[in-house]
Amino acid sequence: MAQGMHYLQIPGPSPVPERIQRAIDRQVIDHRSAVFQKLGKEVLEAIKEPFGTRDPVIIFPASGTGAWEAAIANTLSAGDTVLMAETGQFAVLWSQIAKRWGLKVEMIETDWRHGVDPAAVEAKLAEDKSHTIKAVMVVHNETATSCATDIAAIRKAMDAAHHPALLMIDSVSALASMPVRQDEWGVDVVVSGSQKGMMMPPGLAFTGVSQKALAATRTSTLPKSYWDWNEMLKFNENGFFPYTPAINLLYGLKEALDMLREEGLDNVFARHERLAAATRACVQAWGLELQCADPKAYSPVLTAVRMPGGFDADAFRKSTLEHFNISLGMGLGKVLGKVFRIGHLGDINELTLMAALSGVEMGLTVAEVPHKAGGVLAAMDVLTGESKKLRLSA
Amino acid sequence: MAQGMHYLQIPGPSPVPERIQRAIDRQVIDHRSAVFQKLGKEVLEAIKEPFGTRDPVIIFPASGTGAWEAAIANTLSAGDTVLMAETGQFAVLWSQIAKRWGLKVEMIETDWRHGVDPAAVEAKLAEDKSHTIKAVMVVHNETATSCATDIAAIRKAMDAAHHPALLMIDSVSALASMPVRQDEWGVDVVVSGSQKGMMMPPGLAFTGVSQKALAATRTSTLPKSYWDWNEMLKFNENGFFPYTPAINLLYGLKEALDMLREEGLDNVFARHERLAAATRACVQAWGLELQCADPKAYSPVLTAVRMPGGFDADAFRKSTLEHFNISLGMGLGKVLGKVFRIGHLGDINELTLMAALSGVEMGLTVAEVPHKAGGVLAAMDVLTGESKKLRLSA
Amino acid sequence: MAQGMHYLQIPGPSPVPERIQRAIDRQVIDHRSAVFQKLGKEVLEAIKEPFGTRDPVIIFPASGTGAWEAAIANTLSAGDTVLMAETGQFAVLWSQIAKRWGLKVEMIETDWRHGVDPAAVEAKLAEDKSHTIKAVMVVHNETATSCATDIAAIRKAMDAAHHPALLMIDSVSALASMPVRQDEWGVDVVVSGSQKGMMMPPGLAFTGVSQKALAATRTSTLPKSYWDWNEMLKFNENGFFPYTPAINLLYGLKEALDMLREEGLDNVFARHERLAAATRACVQAWGLELQCADPKAYSPVLTAVRMPGGFDADAFRKSTLEHFNISLGMGLGKVLGKVFRIGHLGDINELTLMAALSGVEMGLTVAEVPHKAGGVLAAMDVLTGESKKLRLSA
Amino acid sequence: MAQGMHYLQIPGPSPVPERIQRAIDRQVIDHRSAVFQKLGKEVLEAIKEPFGTRDPVIIFPASGTGAWEAAIANTLSAGDTVLMAETGQFAVLWSQIAKRWGLKVEMIETDWRHGVDPAAVEAKLAEDKSHTIKAVMVVHNETATSCATDIAAIRKAMDAAHHPALLMIDSVSALASMPVRQDEWGVDVVVSGSQKGMMMPPGLAFTGVSQKALAATRTSTLPKSYWDWNEMLKFNENGFFPYTPAINLLYGLKEALDMLREEGLDNVFARHERLAAATRACVQAWGLELQCADPKAYSPVLTAVRMPGGFDADAFRKSTLEHFNISLGMGLGKVLGKVFRIGHLGDINELTLMAALSGVEMGLTVAEVPHKAGGVLAAMDVLTGESKKLRLSA
Repeated sequence: MAQGMHYLQIPGPSPVPERIQRAIDRQVIDHRSAVFQKLGKEVLEAIKEPFGTRDPVIIFPASGTGAWEAAIANTLSAGDTVLMAETGQFAVLWSQIAKRWGLKVEMIETDWRHGVDPAAVEAKLAEDKSHTIKAVMVVHNETATSCATDIAAIRKAMDAAHHPALLMIDSVSALASMPVRQDEWGVDVVVSGSQKGMMMPPGLAFTGVSQKALAATRTSTLPKSYWDWNEMLKFNENGFFPYTPAINLLYGLKEALDMLREEGLDNVFARHERLAAATRACVQAWGLELQCADPKAYSPVLTAVRMPGGFDADAFRKSTLEHFNISLGMGLGKVLGKVFRIGHLGDINELTLMAALSGVEMGLTVAEVPHKAGGVLAAMDVLTGESKKLRLSA
Repeated sequence: MAQGMHYLQIPGPSPVPERIQRAIDRQVIDHRSAVFQKLGKEVLEAIKEPFGTRDPVIIFPASGTGAWEAAIANTLSAGDTVLMAETGQFAVLWSQIAKRWGLKVEMIETDWRHGVDPAAVEAKLAEDKSHTIKAVMVVHNETATSCATDIAAIRKAMDAAHHPALLMIDSVSALASMPVRQDEWGVDVVVSGSQKGMMMPPGLAFTGVSQKALAATRTSTLPKSYWDWNEMLKFNENGFFPYTPAINLLYGLKEALDMLREEGLDNVFARHERLAAATRACVQAWGLELQCADPKAYSPVLTAVRMPGGFDADAFRKSTLEHFNISLGMGLGKVLGKVFRIGHLGDINELTLMAALSGVEMGLTVAEVPHKAGGVLAAMDVLTGESKKLRLSA
Repeated sequence: MAQGMHYLQIPGPSPVPERIQRAIDRQVIDHRSAVFQKLGKEVLEAIKEPFGTRDPVIIFPASGTGAWEAAIANTLSAGDTVLMAETGQFAVLWSQIAKRWGLKVEMIETDWRHGVDPAAVEAKLAEDKSHTIKAVMVVHNETATSCATDIAAIRKAMDAAHHPALLMIDSVSALASMPVRQDEWGVDVVVSGSQKGMMMPPGLAFTGVSQKALAATRTSTLPKSYWDWNEMLKFNENGFFPYTPAINLLYGLKEALDMLREEGLDNVFARHERLAAATRACVQAWGLELQCADPKAYSPVLTAVRMPGGFDADAFRKSTLEHFNISLGMGLGKVLGKVFRIGHLGDINELTLMAALSGVEMGLTVAEVPHKAGGVLAAMDVLTGESKKLRLSA
Repeated sequence: MAQGMHYLQIPGPSPVPERIQRAIDRQVIDHRSAVFQKLGKEVLEAIKEPFGTRDPVIIFPASGTGAWEAAIANTLSAGDTVLMAETGQFAVLWSQIAKRWGLKVEMIETDWRHGVDPAAVEAKLAEDKSHTIKAVMVVHNETATSCATDIAAIRKAMDAAHHPALLMIDSVSALASMPVRQDEWGVDVVVSGSQKGMMMPPGLAFTGVSQKALAATRTSTLPKSYWDWNEMLKFNENGFFPYTPAINLLYGLKEALDMLREEGLDNVFARHERLAAATRACVQAWGLELQCADPKAYSPVLTAVRMPGGFDADAFRKSTLEHFNISLGMGLGKVLGKVFRIGHLGDINELTLMAALSGVEMGLTVAEVPHKAGGVLAAMDVLTGESKKLRLSA
């Protein structure tokens, strides 16, 4: 049953649309040439929009993970304390990097079913009279749990505590699928990658860098070279890069940014919200439980679903892949085997979502996982309701 | 709402899978070279399998329509009589070509809701004592109505009438989606094209040619050059073509034939049957009527659906395209506006079908066409039932 | 020695540039949709420019050869006489088609080393007081010999003879490499194809059709359906085609027409002239003889070179292919084995030409064909001279 | 004059062959799936061959520069001393990274016209009785000067000095163009990248790691996470990666490794030697001077050419690019403006080299740089001589 299109419904990498695939499929050029320079300037400028910033956005030939490390290496020093919140596995991973780089991590616990609690952040910062905490590091959209964090509220909490720490967020799976408003929210470092809402293959890491973050590089003593923001910015000024950039991925990035501009970021975000709402209606109609326990934190990017007790999520994912040629996301870290995740991000539309949800519903049936039939009808109700609304407003 | 994948669910061209797209995307080569010769020999040999023949299959750089004309020009002469059956619009079109080439067409009527009636063919041939009728020309899978004809039964009817006419069939939309058994069925000319079950872009026309058909070329007096089978076969013997072939499409054809062989033709046919059964269950659950009135003639390739009275099929198709980014087939000829057609052929699987059916169900809702909700559940029942059966037999 | 780029220096198909390859590499669409219609209208309009006409240009999904046949089938009737000139193998092939369609061919002989002599045409027409000759059919650029014919002069000759015959030209290898001025020259039918100056893969045939040619369709009695211009034009009016067009090749055609417009047709022609001049200088410096004996008829598209006596051109071509990964054109028809042909058409520039000429010079050395070394220096002299001129005029 | 193929003759990135471009142009997949795992295992195993090792080769989603940093961060500690030789700009850059990571660099000077002198290395190590020097870091093929270093001789020198330092080499531009024999030569760390002899786009960094190098990771105290070899190897064991890999580039890498295996590495190296010899013969025939002053150190990968006094290499490069659509490498560091570089690496063959050399020769003429005409003839003499030898031995 492996004929036809594979439905890649993991929360990243997300399927690359044909336009971007074709843009990437072009001969390499001299990365020191005027032709490259034009491309470099264009993408470095255009990428600011989805970050919601007028400050520089850095593009590394690397996986998103590299940008996490770069954020630390450029702004902090060994022995510095950072405040984090364990929203899920990606928060855990970032904290491990921090520790490997010699930072002390103060971790706010969660039940892996909520976003970061601004009050808890404020409390921690208020306690920290001596300003030992140098950075607050928050996962914007926790891909392990499908709980998003209200970053504006975190900023407010920090301001309320009158704390000078840097605010760093991991928007790897948020960028270009839900609003990132770096300047408006007062975020100092926004870390992201190419293979999620940006609809690109993996291989590029992005970092939005505020003036305050740049100022912090002057006191940081951690070693850096590949990740050095200042070195990068010196070259970027002219559209170039200090070492050979991933030329073909930059071709694709230009196309991706064009596609986002053509659709309009607000429309992109509304589309993700619409598909996420349909997905949740579907899951709830099946009688299954959402991993995210806070409706205000529901992610528009993916939906993590809790497996009924006694059933292994990975056995279900494997069976559904074999029968229906669809890849679902696995449960990570402490929800391994207990959760599966449905990605609905990037270049996705109503019918691809319906294919995915039909696949899950049929997969549940085939694997004999207890559920109520008709989740897909609930999803269609949401989508046709939205369609009618769009029509009325058109 | 035009983001994401476009669902091309017309009954051809069908979506071209990535493997075939990539095979086509290759630099042209010298069509008189040894490298080309190897390719030519390979595709000319491998294409015989889906035709079910050991006789030659001719490949024209042309649309399938060209092969219709070639079948006439190579075997018949002005003033010859041919027997046809008006199963639908494609039968009408073929008869028009016959007339333009100076043939007399004797047409068996149908209600455009059935395949060809073997008894009617037998009766006509039995009447034709003087063997005025030189060819019986039948549309194998009538793409306008989704009624297939039992070709083996037609052969039997011809044999029962002891009539020497050539049997020519139009398998344009049947090839590689449902069985074509040229040798077993005693078909003299099988006409087909690349853009249906063969999963290719349009641009190649195929013709399976029996020894009897080749013998008929010796008496045919119609003018021909481009379509001349004998000229073609002379070059094909060495893997070459008399004029520049569509090299890139031949690259793709080789890949398509590889894909069919890898899946196994019987599995390909079973997949089409399975998806067609799910589609019909869905349509019937909506309370809509199938255009094909004979269950034995149901096509595994597409399903034509009759629009409820008072509703225009084309307005519905347009609305559904706008809302859900899906293309459905229009009603052709005398069912224009009264029928829409769902293609489920080529490189299609369960989830793409569910996407398509969800699109139609939501489209009916949005366009306020009266129907019962839940067609998609009926389709999923068929598909999960089949999945379980496959699992048991594995 | 088969690593690296293959140099495809036959006179068509010519290498397809990356932009066009990528344009073709796109999913198929519904050929009855509004999206297709837009594409159809665009290419049908834009293709008129390289034909130099405001009259319609027809696009068949076919090899160029098909357009030859169509020109005959649409305008003439069995028994009609046409006047041709045997400039080389392509003239021979066209005359064979004419004969297969029941025409009488009056053939003006040449030595296969010149273009068509206008005086000979005028004499023949002047003799034909009764206007038995219905068409003058001329190969514009004879790809077998690299001799071009002055079409304006042929028109003048026809006018001088006050003869009403149609003027049909085969510009298959001329189009978009050298001027085609259908309207200015008073040509009634211009036949061409995609795989030469148009830089496309083979698979599309083009025909420019004058009003006079269209008028001739009213009296023509030859059978036609696939090639029927009037049927085609009826659909083309709305951007559509009477049967499934080769959608992907039309994507590529749009890109090709864009590229030609961007470079400017006059620049395209000048580039071909420049490269052809360099090629001839090279051949002459080797001490080899050009097949075309008339400097005024030298083709800008390709250069046919006569093999020194006692040496077989095909053995040389084979050896050079094996050693240097370059395909050269073979001698056709009566110059088989005596001539090899260097294509310098389509998306070619100075350095690709130098690669090709170096390959031929080294091939001559390796195959021990007597020649003077340094042809490539003569070619470079021409090219640097041209470069300097361009610089001075810039 | 920018039509036709662009000749990218810089010493990397080198042009990506069609097969690899097409392999990369494929939809992304789940990087935690069994399908990915198979790919991961295959490339991780196959890449060992061009490194000449049975030890692991690590693949980072990064530019080659990243692998330099990783070599340091994994094996060394702040304050460690390393021995380097200033063979050219790439040695300078590597030493700067070492300094940024807190290492002390002892630098052996050269005139930028030779490889590393083994005797100088031996002398330095012999002096270092206390084994303060922890690593010898050598550029294998100095891309700035086209001087290669005899790595086996460096190993011998280290052994003669009985010094336990690690041997690390930068084979970025050597890999898959000239022999790298990590195990045979006793190299501990081989650093490389995708965009040179590997014929890939930039975006992957490779590192061959000996058991001794792995042992050194246990004492290294430099911070690392992204570059952590041990973390990487833990995942690689099962074909996976600790963070999202550059999936599409891995598709391409598999194809590249297939191509190298098909040609045979020894043939690949011989081809590079042959083309390099032709290039040098050409340069010398022009009367220009090679930057590399030691014939034993001549690089098979590229040829750096000294500009005649009073002429600016970059003005010449710019003019030649404009006139002949060819990119040449610039002079780097202290030979900026004094040297231009001709890349002849990766998927290159005789005719592409001749195109490049013709371009340079014509470029010299157009820019009125004094030189003797006929360099290309000298190159052809080398190539035809080699062709004859190959023929005799075949």
